[in-house]
Amino acid sequence: MKAVIIDQINGPIEYKETPTPEPKEGQGIYKVLYSALNHRDLYISQGLYAKIQLPVIPGSDACILDEITGEKYIINPNNNWGTDERAQSPDYHILGMPTQGTLADYICIDKSKIFPKPAHLSDAEAAALPLAGLTAYRALCTRAQAQKGEKVLISGIGGGVALFAMQFAIALGCEVYVTSSSQEKINNAKELGAKNGFLYTDENWHKTCIANKLAFDVIIDSAGGNGFNQLIAVAAPGGRIAIYGGTRGKVDGISPQIIFWKQLSILGSTMGSDKDFKNMVDFVNEHKIKPLIQHQFNIANAQEAFELMNKGHQFGKIVISHS
Amino acid sequence: MKAVIIDQINGPIEYKETPTPEPKEGQGIYKVLYSALNHRDLYISQGLYAKIQLPVIPGSDACILDEITGEKYIINPNNNWGTDERAQSPDYHILGMPTQGTLADYICIDKSKIFPKPAHLSDAEAAALPLAGLTAYRALCTRAQAQKGEKVLISGIGGGVALFAMQFAIALGCEVYVTSSSQEKINNAKELGAKNGFLYTDENWHKTCIANKLAFDVIIDSAGGNGFNQLIAVAAPGGRIAIYGGTRGKVDGISPQIIFWKQLSILGSTMGSDKDFKNMVDFVNEHKIKPLIQHQFNIANAQEAFELMNKGHQFGKIVISHS
Repeated sequence: MKAVIIDQINGPIEYKETPTPEPKEGQGIYKVLYSALNHRDLYISQGLYAKIQLPVIPGSDACILDEITGEKYIINPNNNWGTDERAQSPDYHILGMPTQGTLADYICIDKSKIFPKPAHLSDAEAAALPLAGLTAYRALCTRAQAQKGEKVLISGIGGGVALFAMQFAIALGCEVYVTSSSQEKINNAKELGAKNGFLYTDENWHKTCIANKLAFDVIIDSAGGNGFNQLIAVAAPGGRIAIYGGTRGKVDGISPQIIFWKQLSILGSTMGSDKDFKNMVDFVNEHKIKPLIQHQFNIANAQEAFELMNKGHQFGKIVISHS
Repeated sequence: MKAVIIDQINGPIEYKETPTPEPKEGQGIYKVLYSALNHRDLYISQGLYAKIQLPVIPGSDACILDEITGEKYIINPNNNWGTDERAQSPDYHILGMPTQGTLADYICIDKSKIFPKPAHLSDAEAAALPLAGLTAYRALCTRAQAQKGEKVLISGIGGGVALFAMQFAIALGCEVYVTSSSQEKINNAKELGAKNGFLYTDENWHKTCIANKLAFDVIIDSAGGNGFNQLIAVAAPGGRIAIYGGTRGKVDGISPQIIFWKQLSILGSTMGSDKDFKNMVDFVNEHKIKPLIQHQFNIANAQEAFELMNKGHQFGKIVISHS
């Protein structure tokens, strides 16, 4: 078969011949119809991820086909979460390193990890769902426990997880707001059902919220950095701030007084458990949520897909067609 | 009657004549047998609390007597928590400012706020319980949800809340550790059932924990400051850090990556709801927990009690006898 192989940091990302995998006990072999990129794949290619093992076939997301039965599936990308819903075990890893990922013609997967493709989704949309949907679901629903009628703020709208968090919160019946450095992205979010948005490049954006008595019950953030203090400032009493990334680095100047007086909860969240995955798929089926696709590339042009993600202007998932 | 009256910031704290209060509808009038100090009272006297209104009779804790029936009670110090268990309402206030507090011969209290004095406690011990017990219970049980068998770290042992948190965690069947700047306080905590303690004045104390693979499921902190990063470092995956104070000020250099990868929860907590108070009293009765008293003063010498608290060498509650 052929697959996208990363065999050196910052090296070329090529689609080339490699041995077809053979299923182990409990596994099936599936043809990959579509896959999708996550920042994780980009970070691995750049040497910016923990415990990188090369060479690797990246990719955590796919829509796959059982060529014998004709059934299509998506994959729970979790391995070895463990028995504690609160946190993953030390043996936890995500599909796509160290095991073979989805940017390949074929993949062998434990039959316990496959879920029927949601009927309302195209193959490309289904491929866009798993890892970002899981991460968003755990942050918004399991950790922050967003409820109908609550005000939810999603920071840095545009990435896969942020968009799913926005779509899930709208489906829950929350009043959803976003931040971005781009007015265009804010406008896009409003077209998708967000109530309003704030340019975080305006350093006083949070003061506008405070002046308008707009406070958020739930905030979903993947930036960190000193802007995190603005999120704390606009959190409502009893507010929950789920944080699933830290692209802007460490946070200085956090006030314990504001955290305890407002009874805030700052909740770290990454990926999600097998239970979170099942709940997420059920939620997507129930609410007929459709992943947003920004761009689609053929797997022969995977390098271009990585380059687009690296530009950081994302609004929706980058999907890879395998035919 | 006579009462302790604060009528100027950093002024003398005098026990002097003032009109006896008259009960409003729904209230009873009670003789105060014992009261107890909280840092809140000290901060009010020093002008270091929010929304100070002078003159005030301070005090949030008491053991009181119904002189007609001979029954003794403790007081739920909450007023107007509101209907949201997650956070207090904007109208919330604590007994002892702006309303009259417990450092007086008599006090009028809503009958819905009084609870029978726990039978296993002396009058002085009962007076030491309410506000610190409530604050510790909410932080440890309601917010951090400490469970039997978990490892719990209480930072800065010695203050009323920290000691209750330690006693409650031991009663829950947790394995309890403490930090302090004083080896004597650590030794005292170990005599009371803590498994071990760490001098936080040793800037590498947390490395000892990490080297020994000692990680904490629950951490209860009232300091904040940059030492908070050491608490994050010794938190176990899925760990909950409840923070009910910030005596060491703002926190710099918090890493989002550690928070999300370990799936930590940083949980602000202050005082507690009426439900928390009821649950706390039930817990204290069930486990026959006895508040620790450091020193007892007569109300005529209240100034000395404030001075002792100001020295910061506390290990247990400072109780005021009213006879």
